[in-house]
Amino acid sequence: MAKILLTSGPTRQYLDPVRYLTNASSGQMGAALATAIIDAGHDVVIVSGPVHITYPDAAQVVDVLTTDELMMQCQQIFPECVGVIGVAAPCDYKVEKVSDTKLAKSGDGLILKLVETPDVIATLGRQKTDRQWAVGFALETHDAHFRAVMKMQKKCCDLMVVNGAGAINSPRNQITILAPDGSTICEFEGSKSDVAETIVREITTRLIS
Amino acid sequence: MAKILLTSGPTRQYLDPVRYLTNASSGQMGAALATAIIDAGHDVVIVSGPVHITYPDAAQVVDVLTTDELMMQCQQIFPECVGVIGVAAPCDYKVEKVSDTKLAKSGDGLILKLVETPDVIATLGRQKTDRQWAVGFALETHDAHFRAVMKMQKKCCDLMVVNGAGAINSPRNQITILAPDGSTICEFEGSKSDVAETIVREITTRLIS
Repeated sequence: MAKILLTSGPTRQYLDPVRYLTNASSGQMGAALATAIIDAGHDVVIVSGPVHITYPDAAQVVDVLTTDELMMQCQQIFPECVGVIGVAAPCDYKVEKVSDTKLAKSGDGLILKLVETPDVIATLGRQKTDRQWAVGFALETHDAHFRAVMKMQKKCCDLMVVNGAGAINSPRNQITILAPDGSTICEFEGSKSDVAETIVREITTRLIS
Repeated sequence: MAKILLTSGPTRQYLDPVRYLTNASSGQMGAALATAIIDAGHDVVIVSGPVHITYPDAAQVVDVLTTDELMMQCQQIFPECVGVIGVAAPCDYKVEKVSDTKLAKSGDGLILKLVETPDVIATLGRQKTDRQWAVGFALETHDAHFRAVMKMQKKCCDLMVVNGAGAINSPRNQITILAPDGSTICEFEGSKSDVAETIVREITTRLIS
């Protein structure tokens, strides 16, 4: 039985004990993919940021808060998996230094110097062995196809799923699955459950022998 | 029957269509206060940022996303209310200009210039008539008493409830209620429901004649 690593949900990057940067990723697409993976007869380990949805009982769930925690957990778990699907929306910027105390308002505004967080799927994509695969998600608001192909190459992914900002915290999704050469494998629109089935079917056919 | 305005939950300040600044305010304390207000025989209008909890059916709920929307709704509703309780944790910084498209990672980090959002309770506190009152909440991680008294004066509040960061997204709360002269009216620790009853009892006794 193939064990698949799935990242899901958002992460948070705190500025101080109260304020943080994040996004509205709900974990719905992650939960739908976990269900589709289990239904296809595989095992799934979900590394998930803070969400309010419930993952399937048969999934192993590891909770994380920040992108660094997501990375650390994934690097521990990935070696025992056949592949990774990165549907999480990790916060990709963090402040250089988190304040221990709540930043007091001065009336003058605030200059935040943000640095990039580690790219989890790119790191796993580069580390994967010949027997492993990586499937990335690209959420783009413009030049979607071009940007997704660039990301797929940079992140060493075997497939890339492209969707728009409308996918976030919505019950439905509209996706395009791209092959490493940039060609379109399929386009699909439907409930996240149907979208998840389509993605897992393509992965099973193309990547799990 | 006294109608009370209650702000609740967090707000979001978007950087671009995906990323935003926020905090983990769950709306639990707001829901508990709404219940206590209704149980005390008053009406309540809740202006709430995005939360996953359910407010009592008898409450009128107005949904908002950003601090500016929270401000606009409160200014429309406050004139018909006897007072306001500000338990929301509005995001108090926003970017000067929200990007229409998702900011692409450049590898170089990001400098964010943040400006302060309007202070909702301070604005209502300054606008209130002789017959109206304002109760603020101060979430402090250090110098709590001193900072809360300064906030109460600046925001023209009639009572100030002080709590710590441990209150966020927790079923319990530990509070101190301060009078305008900075003296402690009461200290209380318990479930958010018991804390809410204590606060509404003090408000009813001292502010609703």
